[in-house]
Amino acid sequence: MRKIFLAGTVALSVLTMGGSQAYAQAKPEDVIKYRQAAYRVMGWNFAPMGAMVKGDKPYDKEAFARNAANVEFMSKQLIEGFAPGSDKGETKAKPEIWSKMDDFKSRMTKMNDEAAKLAAVAKTGTFDEIKKQFGATAGSCKACHDEYRNK
Amino acid sequence: MRKIFLAGTVALSVLTMGGSQAYAQAKPEDVIKYRQAAYRVMGWNFAPMGAMVKGDKPYDKEAFARNAANVEFMSKQLIEGFAPGSDKGETKAKPEIWSKMDDFKSRMTKMNDEAAKLAAVAKTGTFDEIKKQFGATAGSCKACHDEYRNK
Repeated sequence: MRKIFLAGTVALSVLTMGGSQAYAQAKPEDVIKYRQAAYRVMGWNFAPMGAMVKGDKPYDKEAFARNAANVEFMSKQLIEGFAPGSDKGETKAKPEIWSKMDDFKSRMTKMNDEAAKLAAVAKTGTFDEIKKQFGATAGSCKACHDEYRNK
Repeated sequence: MRKIFLAGTVALSVLTMGGSQAYAQAKPEDVIKYRQAAYRVMGWNFAPMGAMVKGDKPYDKEAFARNAANVEFMSKQLIEGFAPGSDKGETKAKPEIWSKMDDFKSRMTKMNDEAAKLAAVAKTGTFDEIKKQFGATAGSCKACHDEYRNK
């Protein structure tokens, strides 16, 4: 066991996956990189659903449901990417996020809820129901981007 | 409903979260950016567990279990980041990944399994058991990095 544990800690020290926040409060630039990564993973899953909804890609129920579950999961991981102090740096996030954090969080929660509904309907709903909820989810993304994200 | 749907498609078109793969096969550079993002999100969750295991951060059972669940989830999202054609570009991934894909996938699966065990033990195990499984998980990351990732 000790041997495995040591291998683990050695392994940890060579893992460079944005891990510098391990040993202290996360640095602002690491928080920014994390949140951009989290949005990218979400977008990676969101985009193919959009293509299916628009008819640019054949509808695949299983793939859509998996994408929707991934978006739901990732959507809940975003808020920790807006830690205090991460307002300055290479970011499109507007400073108003931090000065109006209650409103920002409320929009984030709304989006989390819409994404959860999408994941649920993607499993059992008709394609029309799914399209409708996809629209509601995309709208809840846009509601935040319009207000809090620089172009 | 139609109105909501339209709002959604308009929203989609302005969402720029790495979404250019929506309308065609994903471009190699988007696949690379996706996998780097997925590893970053995983690392963001892995690092605080490492700090707790090393004693650099107080052990918080709930936080650790959440990080472990996130790592398990993300670990399963990595493989799609190694789509054919994504071997060239700004990447530390060695070309051997694609020429030895069976071995690569087998190491990835092993890591997925260790991460799943970590998420399970993080919920119910003793800290000693958790530390042991953290070591095994980190070792399974390292096993792949050593072979398939440039420094």
